[in-house]
Amino acid sequence: MTSTPGPQRDVILAVDIGGTKFAAGLMTARGVLLDRSRVEVEPDVGPQSHFAGLVSVVNEQLEQARTQHDVRVRAIGIGCAGPIERNCETVSPLNISSWRQFPLRAHLEELTGLPVYGDLDAKALALSEGWLGAAQGVSSFCAMTVSTGVGGGLVIDGELLDGATGNAGHIGHMIVEPGGRRCGCGARGCLEAEASGLAIEAITGRSPTEPTYDIMRRTGRLVGRAAGMICTSLDLDLVVVGGGVALGFAATFFNAAQEEIDAVAHVGQGVAARITPVRLGDQGPLIGAGAVGLRGLRREVSPRRPVPISAELLDGPS
Amino acid sequence: MTSTPGPQRDVILAVDIGGTKFAAGLMTARGVLLDRSRVEVEPDVGPQSHFAGLVSVVNEQLEQARTQHDVRVRAIGIGCAGPIERNCETVSPLNISSWRQFPLRAHLEELTGLPVYGDLDAKALALSEGWLGAAQGVSSFCAMTVSTGVGGGLVIDGELLDGATGNAGHIGHMIVEPGGRRCGCGARGCLEAEASGLAIEAITGRSPTEPTYDIMRRTGRLVGRAAGMICTSLDLDLVVVGGGVALGFAATFFNAAQEEIDAVAHVGQGVAARITPVRLGDQGPLIGAGAVGLRGLRREVSPRRPVPISAELLDGPS
Repeated sequence: MTSTPGPQRDVILAVDIGGTKFAAGLMTARGVLLDRSRVEVEPDVGPQSHFAGLVSVVNEQLEQARTQHDVRVRAIGIGCAGPIERNCETVSPLNISSWRQFPLRAHLEELTGLPVYGDLDAKALALSEGWLGAAQGVSSFCAMTVSTGVGGGLVIDGELLDGATGNAGHIGHMIVEPGGRRCGCGARGCLEAEASGLAIEAITGRSPTEPTYDIMRRTGRLVGRAAGMICTSLDLDLVVVGGGVALGFAATFFNAAQEEIDAVAHVGQGVAARITPVRLGDQGPLIGAGAVGLRGLRREVSPRRPVPISAELLDGPS
Repeated sequence: MTSTPGPQRDVILAVDIGGTKFAAGLMTARGVLLDRSRVEVEPDVGPQSHFAGLVSVVNEQLEQARTQHDVRVRAIGIGCAGPIERNCETVSPLNISSWRQFPLRAHLEELTGLPVYGDLDAKALALSEGWLGAAQGVSSFCAMTVSTGVGGGLVIDGELLDGATGNAGHIGHMIVEPGGRRCGCGARGCLEAEASGLAIEAITGRSPTEPTYDIMRRTGRLVGRAAGMICTSLDLDLVVVGGGVALGFAATFFNAAQEEIDAVAHVGQGVAARITPVRLGDQGPLIGAGAVGLRGLRREVSPRRPVPISAELLDGPS
């Protein structure tokens, strides 16, 4: 499109690393996706072949930025399946077996010369749903993905919680069945060991795409139990849930989850907590990745320095 | 003491409302208690008689401030047994049956003409232990009291978490035994329904001051389970525990709690979470109450406005 030349718009190159596909897109500062492309992850190839697949979609979008949209790419934002090290310095997505501590951030920076910011996909989802989705305008909430695994992100007073190692919001390891199934993490009865897609397949012998009514209800109940505990302990009243398992189980899942939350959270306090599906659909992961990029840029400008409590208090009267 | 006259030091009048006693003290901005007095709560008297007991210790400390310490009382800070409404507008401590929605803040303001700031005792404890106690210098941690009831407070990035209704940190209602004992809150299997002093008495028929080895271990395990879930979901590595039951059960309790945390939290992530007793002893509640007062004053000067996530993000590039 050739229009009157003006100041170039800034965009974020958003990159979504899922277990089965890579996607890239161009996102404006208002969260509009101008363009996107995706590629399937080829199974059983080496780490550099995987990276070559990612390079193809990234370069395609950089080309689109230059030739089709007349925008300036300011940074790359990544949402990545876990586990990752902080800022995607290294990534080891469970479903991409050849990427183990793969130095993704440095590789993308070297490829593009752009600043690169990365985070867990579930935390990226929390950013996107809080910005433009089901938690828009809500300053504190919990976001979860219930899919092959179970992940989550917590937004408190408008800030996505990172925690000491960047893993805050890891709701998949709440204990929902004490003494229950052994989890990949080593504990027993974790939500992820009882309600993830992999767990459902192991427990029922059926793919989570062919669920029984009972398994949809049970999965909802267990997710509701963990979500309810989060709502009570953090005094939240909104949980936004995405991921193929949750969305596939649909109303049966969400109704069971809501019933369990009503049974365990804020009982008698009169503040009902609500569980609701994500609203950004298939744009959510890329918008979330873009939001990770925006957040990274913002922090470069005004770093947020957590301080121990004493310093804060002593700002008081002396 | 008459020394060279100089600029008067500012202090906070700290007020601790427990289930069985009221205490008041004078705390400097550095957390030193210059003076304190306490009075037992008389059972079975009316709300104004209870308040008269509180007035006696408050007036005693105001008098001490004037005549003995030459300090200026800038504000009152309260730590109060729950439940309370935000800022102690009303308080309904479980063990003071004649105070139900008693308008404590207004009464104390009317009595003294001072600004009054109040919060839950467990949140006050989190402030004091983070400031000068076992969590000193730690920017994110969890504090708990395990006593007649079970309460808690969460400090994240140096800020005590309030939550939507001021009840964040309410760890007593984590579900540690799904389907377990009915809790006062209406849910089943809450930590408070399984591990509080009242619960222990109901389950064992013995006072928690005469525990068996098994009940000390079980209580520790259940507290560790809730603490472990908090550590995992918020990516914390320190839990500070006070309260008569926990401290009375001593090493037997803390060892069992640590074992359970090791079994459920951060397993395989290599970040061990630690549970440890409070360090401020019997000064903790008053220092916590004083910290609530300091925090209130600080917020008057620079209010902290939680914003929805969009506004934060849009501070980024445009």
